[in-house]
Amino acid sequence: MAGPQEAAEFARVANDGLAELCAKHPDRFAGYVGALPMNAPEAAAKEAERILIHGNANGLQLHANVAGACLDEPRFFPIFEVAAKSGKPVLLHPARTPNVADFPAETKSKYEIWAILGWPYETSCTMARLIFSGVTTRLPDLKILIHHLGAMIPFFDARLDTGWATLGSRTSDEDYGGVLKMLGKPLMDCFRDFYADTALCGGRIGTVCGLEFFGADHVLFASDAPFGAQGGASYIRETMKVIAGLEIARADKEKICYRNAQALFKLS
Amino acid sequence: MAGPQEAAEFARVANDGLAELCAKHPDRFAGYVGALPMNAPEAAAKEAERILIHGNANGLQLHANVAGACLDEPRFFPIFEVAAKSGKPVLLHPARTPNVADFPAETKSKYEIWAILGWPYETSCTMARLIFSGVTTRLPDLKILIHHLGAMIPFFDARLDTGWATLGSRTSDEDYGGVLKMLGKPLMDCFRDFYADTALCGGRIGTVCGLEFFGADHVLFASDAPFGAQGGASYIRETMKVIAGLEIARADKEKICYRNAQALFKLS
Repeated sequence: MAGPQEAAEFARVANDGLAELCAKHPDRFAGYVGALPMNAPEAAAKEAERILIHGNANGLQLHANVAGACLDEPRFFPIFEVAAKSGKPVLLHPARTPNVADFPAETKSKYEIWAILGWPYETSCTMARLIFSGVTTRLPDLKILIHHLGAMIPFFDARLDTGWATLGSRTSDEDYGGVLKMLGKPLMDCFRDFYADTALCGGRIGTVCGLEFFGADHVLFASDAPFGAQGGASYIRETMKVIAGLEIARADKEKICYRNAQALFKLS
Repeated sequence: MAGPQEAAEFARVANDGLAELCAKHPDRFAGYVGALPMNAPEAAAKEAERILIHGNANGLQLHANVAGACLDEPRFFPIFEVAAKSGKPVLLHPARTPNVADFPAETKSKYEIWAILGWPYETSCTMARLIFSGVTTRLPDLKILIHHLGAMIPFFDARLDTGWATLGSRTSDEDYGGVLKMLGKPLMDCFRDFYADTALCGGRIGTVCGLEFFGADHVLFASDAPFGAQGGASYIRETMKVIAGLEIARADKEKICYRNAQALFKLS
């Protein structure tokens, strides 16, 4: 792993390289999202400011844990502050590793559960933590785009709503009394404020569920390519087929397929 | 925590008490599922045999972890063997605690994520582990009823199918080469073999998604009462409303509401 100073330089080099690529091949690249040296949060906030506000990056890609830590830690707040100020989105991608065991009595994950199920779980935990820690409430202009169509949130919407309505009742060593009030609006509206992409590997029933939860204004096309068979071609094809088959207005399909992306990433 | 010998006795007392209650009040209790001394697996298998095969318990309730261990460990196999032989179902309920941290850099879960999101996650991990370890393949007659409408499985069906199609490709320290072949049928058919209950706290979009995945023959009414507002009355009412509103045949609603339960629990 690169040290903080190296990481800051690597990020700068990578982001400048992406900016250059986009400038050279505007017919192939609509834009880019920047990477940050998250092990150096102050430098990361500065780099975010350089590429989002002074440069023309179209967003940031952050991972759902930083060397095992959650993004709701105060040291990361200045990064979200810059993103909110820029009006450009943060793309949230899970990053759990095989070293996170499936069960407390074990030392590592089996059968690649850490990736297949663990990633959507980690994403969901991060969403909850960003809400309950106050990050999203303090930064109402912050836009976060969630991978895998909002992970566990749509399917469990009523469970989350009613289960967290009694937040604090299962806890004796922390005072969660003021958390829900601090949000200033219903919890599920906070979850609905996230944007979500359609990367469900061509799953139709999950797509219907996720779209009903977030609505056509907050869902953006993505396929997870180059993962999947045929170098990702299969995921792209299957996801497009699912969207084409949805019983929704043509205008909503256009939003999902490109209009939301144009607006969110500030593309021309 | 009770020691193994105590636990075995407690389970026997509890199960006999439930059997007695059911015999005394057949108008109020259609049947009962037994508890087992899981910290004494041999005694647990014997108790399962006593109540399922020689007694009239209608199934077992197992928790998704045993003091932190996964149910796919060989020491628990004889319990599943008895359940399969009896033809009666195992009800799987999550049991994760606040001591399982949301992120590797932390020591405990925050904001009750361990229960709200952690429980469905643990359930999903257990399902995957029971499949990949060969438990469900070795016991084709085993019937397992999953809480929360199959947890993460329905929403992520295509992700699971395509992601696990390359099981082994993300792993260098284990050989998963023969696992998929061992299943003897497509992975998603193994997931569809589970039964699932409708305890989604009255969530409509999740219910539609889960029902499409499992089909009306494998979904059973449950509400999660007495959790929820009004001592559980709200969960019962909302879940019934969701099922009533589903655009499916009346015969399918009857299966979900009682016919599947009659057959699965061998009720008269």
